[in-house]
Amino acid sequence: MKTPFTIIKGSVTAARGFRAAGMAAGIKPSGRKDLALIVSDAPATVAATFTTNQVKAAPVQLDMEHVATSGGTARAIVANSGNANACQGKAGRIHARAMAVAVARRIKCPEEQVLVCSTGRIGVNLPIVKIEAGIKKLLEAVSRDGAHEAAQAIMTSDTRTKEIAVRLKLGGRAVHIGGIAKGAGMIQPNMATMLAFLTTDAEMTRATLQHALGAAVKQSFNRISIDGDTSTNDTVLLLANGAAGGKPLAGTALAGFQEALDFVCLELAKMMVRDGEGVTKFVTVNVRGAVNDHQAEAAARAVVNSTLVKTSWCGGDPNWGRIMDAIGYSRAKVREEMVEIAYNGVVAVRHGVATKVSPQRLRKATKQSTFAVDIHLHIGRGRCTMHSCDLTEKYVALNKGE
Amino acid sequence: MKTPFTIIKGSVTAARGFRAAGMAAGIKPSGRKDLALIVSDAPATVAATFTTNQVKAAPVQLDMEHVATSGGTARAIVANSGNANACQGKAGRIHARAMAVAVARRIKCPEEQVLVCSTGRIGVNLPIVKIEAGIKKLLEAVSRDGAHEAAQAIMTSDTRTKEIAVRLKLGGRAVHIGGIAKGAGMIQPNMATMLAFLTTDAEMTRATLQHALGAAVKQSFNRISIDGDTSTNDTVLLLANGAAGGKPLAGTALAGFQEALDFVCLELAKMMVRDGEGVTKFVTVNVRGAVNDHQAEAAARAVVNSTLVKTSWCGGDPNWGRIMDAIGYSRAKVREEMVEIAYNGVVAVRHGVATKVSPQRLRKATKQSTFAVDIHLHIGRGRCTMHSCDLTEKYVALNKGE
Repeated sequence: MKTPFTIIKGSVTAARGFRAAGMAAGIKPSGRKDLALIVSDAPATVAATFTTNQVKAAPVQLDMEHVATSGGTARAIVANSGNANACQGKAGRIHARAMAVAVARRIKCPEEQVLVCSTGRIGVNLPIVKIEAGIKKLLEAVSRDGAHEAAQAIMTSDTRTKEIAVRLKLGGRAVHIGGIAKGAGMIQPNMATMLAFLTTDAEMTRATLQHALGAAVKQSFNRISIDGDTSTNDTVLLLANGAAGGKPLAGTALAGFQEALDFVCLELAKMMVRDGEGVTKFVTVNVRGAVNDHQAEAAARAVVNSTLVKTSWCGGDPNWGRIMDAIGYSRAKVREEMVEIAYNGVVAVRHGVATKVSPQRLRKATKQSTFAVDIHLHIGRGRCTMHSCDLTEKYVALNKGE
Repeated sequence: MKTPFTIIKGSVTAARGFRAAGMAAGIKPSGRKDLALIVSDAPATVAATFTTNQVKAAPVQLDMEHVATSGGTARAIVANSGNANACQGKAGRIHARAMAVAVARRIKCPEEQVLVCSTGRIGVNLPIVKIEAGIKKLLEAVSRDGAHEAAQAIMTSDTRTKEIAVRLKLGGRAVHIGGIAKGAGMIQPNMATMLAFLTTDAEMTRATLQHALGAAVKQSFNRISIDGDTSTNDTVLLLANGAAGGKPLAGTALAGFQEALDFVCLELAKMMVRDGEGVTKFVTVNVRGAVNDHQAEAAARAVVNSTLVKTSWCGGDPNWGRIMDAIGYSRAKVREEMVEIAYNGVVAVRHGVATKVSPQRLRKATKQSTFAVDIHLHIGRGRCTMHSCDLTEKYVALNKGE
């Protein structure tokens, strides 16, 4: 039985006991908001996932330490856009720590209970004095009404904020989960960085919280691709302050929480894809019938990261030959004569060759702004769903710089 | 000691005993040349490399069989552009074989001594009647002067032919190596297919020839990337007819042959990149100091296939942060604090952080139409060089179809 949940207004302050704010601290030359703060009134249990890139930005390195040394407890998240604080050597680590200290000193908590995130161009010195001044102001400004401003302050080339919140009943108590995120973007031509901050007032043990977040991330943020580039700064943080009361979630209540968390993460992930740079098509790729889930994922990733597949989507061209090619060079085992490919349910390929469906019918699907590509390998039971987008001239124009 | 070789006019008919022709057989709606034939007057030893894609076009499957059953002997190569003859099931295999038979019957050789190649859109039925009629005419037309027309007839969206020939002295005898190739392109929006046909009048054993070709391909055609998509049709064929006389090449003479073959393959590969779809920049990426050559290759491939790196090259933006990011998520071991990156010798990054070199100086390099990116990982002795290009709005426009 599914636990029902309701989508409500708001995001990271929908859960009780969280306050937020966002402001322009002067990091972005444009004068837009670039510094965000989320504070939990009480110490919260924290779960986190970070980029797998070997080149990790200074704030990522700091947060990994903080999550470990604090025993998984956090009071605040401070995040800036407009500068990734990556590839800055020792200066980067000093600056990231200075951001944590500036918050910790004023809310009177150990510095390891403050998590730091940055997003923007790599290799540029962080204007730490401006940021410290900004943090002081933000600490006075944080409120239950500040979540939208925080969502604005983590944007780079995003065209809209990404916010969501849900309410559900678990064990007779009202529990809230909310989050904000930013997607692929830049204010200067730069790499995409993905950040998501989630809060809940559920009472959770650290291990359960981390497990729940890991499961949700795997099926949401780790199942989207805009351009195939994994950032140095990717971070997802989930704070649970237990304000809903009761015992730590377990059993059916935990399953209900997981469902709602999965929904929140997937919605935020989809918002990122839809607002990807230059994106005009949102495409869901479902691979079934692979040897195993891992191979299904390899096939799906090959398709959503193929430059030629993505450009064909841009033109609304049902060019399934490029999909056959991409799965063929993927690490997934493929038997050409078994492959089936459908666009929005219209089967274009069966037994590895074209069906008699007219190109016009296929084009009707691929001309839409949202469509699905279903690929059945007919070998095993492995499956994977990825959400992706087209590659457009605008993407190139936005990213070529100069 | 290097064996000197001279670049001469011509291509696949520079070596004695080879004739060629190209014509418009009516496969391309544009009416351009689309059918090529290369004939060796005597049976030639053949070496071949084929796509590693699991989805192999019918002519690739046929050629793999032919090379095996003929014991590595070939008399002719027949190739069409305008249609890949891929994902056509049984019909595709029948048509590919029909092309071989049409040639073999007229030059009176076993059909397995004829090799067949196709390039163009996947999943479209091959107009075999037109092709058979064309082959008949081509067999009357083949001559020592027909190489340029053959080079034209394998083009898809290439803007110019790719031809080269060299002459060298080996063991007192004049030896020639020549080749034609086609790069990334399409007449209808489609995937890139890479074809290269090479001929030589050197006397070679089959094993030596295959080894020489494998070595040359590894450092040339397998070291370029335009869009990271591996085609279903990629094929490199090398025919050696021994018209130069003498014993099979070995020792110093073989080393000299290898050098010249390496040069021919690398030049053809570079021509492909320069003529890649929408390309405005030719970029050579040299990775050094990796754990081993395999890891160096992984790092180099991550860089040349990164959408964000390629778009930054398009704008001439020395955005080394994206390069740091790409090597960081590659399979190569990277220690951020050891990394050095230079553009045309101007060091942008040392010990993983920016040097004091001005962006203007870096931009001077990246604004050129040809430049090098040198990446030193400072961990081991592994190295790899890849040749690649930028990703432009024009590439997207050419490939989005409709």
